[in-house]
Amino acid sequence: MDMHELTRSLQVKNKAKIVMLVGDGLGGLPMEAGGKTELETAVTPNLDRLAKNGVQGASIPVKPGIAPGSGPGHLGLFGYDPLKYQIGRGALEATGIGFELQDGDVAIRCNFCTLDADGNISDRRAGRIPTEESAPIAISLRQIKIDGIEIFVEPVKEHRFVVVFRGPGLGGEVNDTDPQATGVPPLEPVARDSGSKKTVEVAKEFLRQAKEILKDQPKANFHTMRGFAAKPALPTFDDVYGLRAAAVAVYPMYKGLARLVGMDIVGNAQTLEEQMEVLKQNWDDYDFFFLHYKYTDSTGEDGNFAEKVKRTEDLDAAIPKIEALKPEVLIVTGDHSTPAYLKSHSWHPVPTLLVSDCCRPDPHDSFSESTCITGGLGQFEAKYLMLLALSNAERMGKYGA
Amino acid sequence: MDMHELTRSLQVKNKAKIVMLVGDGLGGLPMEAGGKTELETAVTPNLDRLAKNGVQGASIPVKPGIAPGSGPGHLGLFGYDPLKYQIGRGALEATGIGFELQDGDVAIRCNFCTLDADGNISDRRAGRIPTEESAPIAISLRQIKIDGIEIFVEPVKEHRFVVVFRGPGLGGEVNDTDPQATGVPPLEPVARDSGSKKTVEVAKEFLRQAKEILKDQPKANFHTMRGFAAKPALPTFDDVYGLRAAAVAVYPMYKGLARLVGMDIVGNAQTLEEQMEVLKQNWDDYDFFFLHYKYTDSTGEDGNFAEKVKRTEDLDAAIPKIEALKPEVLIVTGDHSTPAYLKSHSWHPVPTLLVSDCCRPDPHDSFSESTCITGGLGQFEAKYLMLLALSNAERMGKYGA
Repeated sequence: MDMHELTRSLQVKNKAKIVMLVGDGLGGLPMEAGGKTELETAVTPNLDRLAKNGVQGASIPVKPGIAPGSGPGHLGLFGYDPLKYQIGRGALEATGIGFELQDGDVAIRCNFCTLDADGNISDRRAGRIPTEESAPIAISLRQIKIDGIEIFVEPVKEHRFVVVFRGPGLGGEVNDTDPQATGVPPLEPVARDSGSKKTVEVAKEFLRQAKEILKDQPKANFHTMRGFAAKPALPTFDDVYGLRAAAVAVYPMYKGLARLVGMDIVGNAQTLEEQMEVLKQNWDDYDFFFLHYKYTDSTGEDGNFAEKVKRTEDLDAAIPKIEALKPEVLIVTGDHSTPAYLKSHSWHPVPTLLVSDCCRPDPHDSFSESTCITGGLGQFEAKYLMLLALSNAERMGKYGA
Repeated sequence: MDMHELTRSLQVKNKAKIVMLVGDGLGGLPMEAGGKTELETAVTPNLDRLAKNGVQGASIPVKPGIAPGSGPGHLGLFGYDPLKYQIGRGALEATGIGFELQDGDVAIRCNFCTLDADGNISDRRAGRIPTEESAPIAISLRQIKIDGIEIFVEPVKEHRFVVVFRGPGLGGEVNDTDPQATGVPPLEPVARDSGSKKTVEVAKEFLRQAKEILKDQPKANFHTMRGFAAKPALPTFDDVYGLRAAAVAVYPMYKGLARLVGMDIVGNAQTLEEQMEVLKQNWDDYDFFFLHYKYTDSTGEDGNFAEKVKRTEDLDAAIPKIEALKPEVLIVTGDHSTPAYLKSHSWHPVPTLLVSDCCRPDPHDSFSESTCITGGLGQFEAKYLMLLALSNAERMGKYGA
């Protein structure tokens, strides 16, 4: 049985509130043999205090050994099997720049490219044209009109932009037009299923008009289309968990991911302090709050161990403001590890802490990669965390009689 | 999603080398309450040193409580779900005696039996005829000729031998001819699918000629055919992991299992010392090395606790020779437990140790059944071990954006 079928059938409504605080890339590694991780190095009196009353575990984002991107990492935390639910590249790119996809939309990642006199691609990235040059060119494509289709063109960075087609009967199963080579012409878009034939027609017409508009550009005189993707069909938090859910995030990607599972995006916080304020303001209107904190990841990606330690301490310092609201369930976790040692997302299990009145507390007085291994949650796949959240909130009935 | 699909799509090529040292049947049990296991009793300074820099866990060969044979045990370690990929008995038997199956071959386990005057089986094992008598009789069956089919007959032990049919259009879905009873005649071979009808014809003709050849034998005057099996279709290590893989094994069964997943069999080592030499000689030519050590299993099967301890110490003593080659990832594990206490393969999780520059080391300074329980790899199904090997070798990209 699908876990969502199960949670749907076991839903219990009550007033309990759940807060999931996600320190992006929370898990880490020591920089040298025998050393401590970022989380172990950080002075985290609040997490340590929570650890005394909570239960810890090591969350495996996808499967052992798999390092996830932000999409699968968060889907897992939200209880959506990241190997079953996949967000197409175009849809993720649109989500990442804050574009609000609607059902039936098809999103496409586009790259400006340079064509030579024979129509062959001489540069697949148009000389990595700088954003200040490429953005106005992308915006010039907004003049493209196609009957019955609403078109959105959004600049991204350098040679990249996003196109979204909105209209009836569009499917996302279309091959890339980027031939992944130079000296050859771009490919024609080709549908992989019959439901995407109309998308191909629309894409061809878009490309025809774009070629005309771009023809005098010295570098960006054409573009390729990649990662065609319909808005992924994800059931909502309300549907599968019976939760009114809100996301308090700073970055568009995480707001977008939350929106895809039906969370409301509340506030417009730019700092952790503002996020705490937004949380408080919206406390009465929701059952579940997803709080996203970016900097444990970005400092890890930068390979800046000391800064990740500091940002972890900042995260810790915010915790009393959450506690003051007295959530029935407070979870602190991450969507994956981002060890400064590796300067990248990694596969290492993520320290996860759950505090509730009815958790079975561990005998630990701190919270880290080494303590979580012997915590009561054991090692578990992230996709099960929401089940634990619901049950600790007494929002899930008994399975079977 | 299938894990092989995933690893195929995430492959990264680099120069990192992975060594998987398999102590067959490594896990054990105490002989009396409160006692130590074989691994805990053995003096293993090298494993203990590795433990300080590595991460441990308890590998579940198939599922909790399932004791595997060598086939499923190794398939799991190689990352092939042992419940999905099954090696037919005939194919495993052929593999075990070193017969190199080709695509399309059908292998059959045969038992000499005794027929009475009425053609009924009076002894299903021909009086467990000793090998020195049965082998020449099996070899006499090599005179059997069937048009368009290449036939191989290989003696095994006592009443057992293996027949392989090679030719176009042979399927392995054929029922046993052993009626599992005496006082009745052998069954006719019957195809379970249309692709195996030709195999049935060939088998009938083989049996007809065999009856003629064997008719004057006092005990082995006929034989049954069991476990018809085509060569299993296992994707290769090169395909699913992008690894050039080599097996350094002494016994035919393990060479055969390695060959089935596309490993090259290198060297002809007869001792652990020679295996280490072969490893060194082939170091530059492969990315992955499977080192198989038999004696932790055979001593367990014998119920010889003290000898298993000694053989474990021998295994430990070989480790510096592997370390000297500086593999990026070194794994020590077993395909299952073989406690001397049980004198058989068992279901107990297998102590597993992984050492790499980017593992998250445990606070352990020894390696055993009791330490691995609190190691950072937790309890995991063996089929995930290759994912961990690949990620620790930085040979696997990020899943999703």
